Amino acid sequence: MKSRKKETPVILITNDDSISAPGIKALAEAVKDLGRVVVVAPDKPQSGMGHAITIGHPLRLHKQYFLDEIEAYSCSGTPVDCVKIAVDKVLHRKPDICLSGINHGANHSINVIYSGTMSAAIEASIESIPSAGFSLLDYSVEADFSASKVYVRKIVEKMLQQKHDKHFTLNVNIPAVDVSLIKGVKICRQAYAKYDEKFLERKDPHGRNYFWLTGEFMNFDKAKDTDVWALKNNYVSIVPVQFDLTNYNTKNQLEKKWKF
Amino acid sequence: MKSRKKETPVILITNDDSISAPGIKALAEAVKDLGRVVVVAPDKPQSGMGHAITIGHPLRLHKQYFLDEIEAYSCSGTPVDCVKIAVDKVLHRKPDICLSGINHGANHSINVIYSGTMSAAIEASIESIPSAGFSLLDYSVEADFSASKVYVRKIVEKMLQQKHDKHFTLNVNIPAVDVSLIKGVKICRQAYAKYDEKFLERKDPHGRNYFWLTGEFMNFDKAKDTDVWALKNNYVSIVPVQFDLTNYNTKNQLEKKWKF
Repeated sequence: MKSRKKETPVILITNDDSISAPGIKALAEAVKDLGRVVVVAPDKPQSGMGHAITIGHPLRLHKQYFLDEIEAYSCSGTPVDCVKIAVDKVLHRKPDICLSGINHGANHSINVIYSGTMSAAIEASIESIPSAGFSLLDYSVEADFSASKVYVRKIVEKMLQQKHDKHFTLNVNIPAVDVSLIKGVKICRQAYAKYDEKFLERKDPHGRNYFWLTGEFMNFDKAKDTDVWALKNNYVSIVPVQFDLTNYNTKNQLEKKWKF
Repeated sequence: MKSRKKETPVILITNDDSISAPGIKALAEAVKDLGRVVVVAPDKPQSGMGHAITIGHPLRLHKQYFLDEIEAYSCSGTPVDCVKIAVDKVLHRKPDICLSGINHGANHSINVIYSGTMSAAIEASIESIPSAGFSLLDYSVEADFSASKVYVRKIVEKMLQQKHDKHFTLNVNIPAVDVSLIKGVKICRQAYAKYDEKFLERKDPHGRNYFWLTGEFMNFDKAKDTDVWALKNNYVSIVPVQFDLTNYNTKNQLEKKWKF
């Protein structure tokens, strides 16, 4: 009698830079022999979409050629829509794990709030699907994902080997340096940083004003346990993330102070 | 010599249902004599937009008639865009407080993640502007905001009277009942609930499939300290909210367990 083989895990992959971005191909290549990989990703760039979902109009889903032997679909919705429709209409089950990225650009610190990449991972964790979002600190379409692929694989192997909390989600950021310069991996907390934003004001050909969002990343949190510090010092940063937004400290204070 | 009058607070108001929704008028009416109210709200419905921001195209800002003596602008962007552009291009300073809503429909529990109303409030708190999002558990355009107005006012008065943490944000939900039936206000934590989602599959006139998101709210968390419990029992629920998504429990575990 043959011993029963461990079942192949189903790995759902998505992103926010669209199915045609090099980063999502790098992610699939890094993990394709660890399970059955299925890709459901936006048909156009969806950076900065946060946790947006599509309520007011319908979605389209199209089969795509992606990489040899990898089943892939583009979806007309947001990254969060992609996770939802993948479970209901592509896989007809929950995947064993959901991976998002590799994002072209940082999602450390406050970026976790704006990031479509991370919102897709968080959506999976709401559904009790362990997940991780991966981001490389290089916005370029020609970014070099070779170091990222090495660390993505190490982290996904650990995720598949061990049992974690059912809402397990990681925000992983990778410094844009050669793999030989990466010092290791640090488990971090989210730094307090924000964007100092200015809208550029211009006039259109009809003389009417329009405004473009521009912003400079400002870090107010220099502590060594933060993701910003780790990345500055050439570590891969891992921030475990949660979707319970309750501020328990403030809750305790208000329970004592506020009487209506 | 006259005693110096306390400065009038600047109150920024926004929402996600658009500047023409009855809920935002109810919010402005409830607080208009507590400070200088300025409204900057989306020019179209933006429900479910989460923390989306507009990066890829420019924004428009138009002065609008709103209520007598209230300065108001519509913006072509998301609720989070509205907060950003209000600070930079309308007020040219941070408001003393930012209020969002009153949303037509619940934003308790996991809705906080998808809600444009709450994302606008959270954006303000990232900018160190104390804020609150208000939501009535009634999706109807004809919803009765009279009880909401009473409790909005009580809460905003408390916010203005006291000094709080600089990232203070509240998620306030109001049951859809007559004011006489409301039992009071409860400080709560966010219940663990999620949507059980199905996509309706249909064919367009050209025979191609399209998918509409539908979902049923499923609460898995019956505890009495949750917002879901409070609302079911006719209390106004207040959940203090934070934007640090770090899961500190998992962080501690991984620091011990994961070696690379």
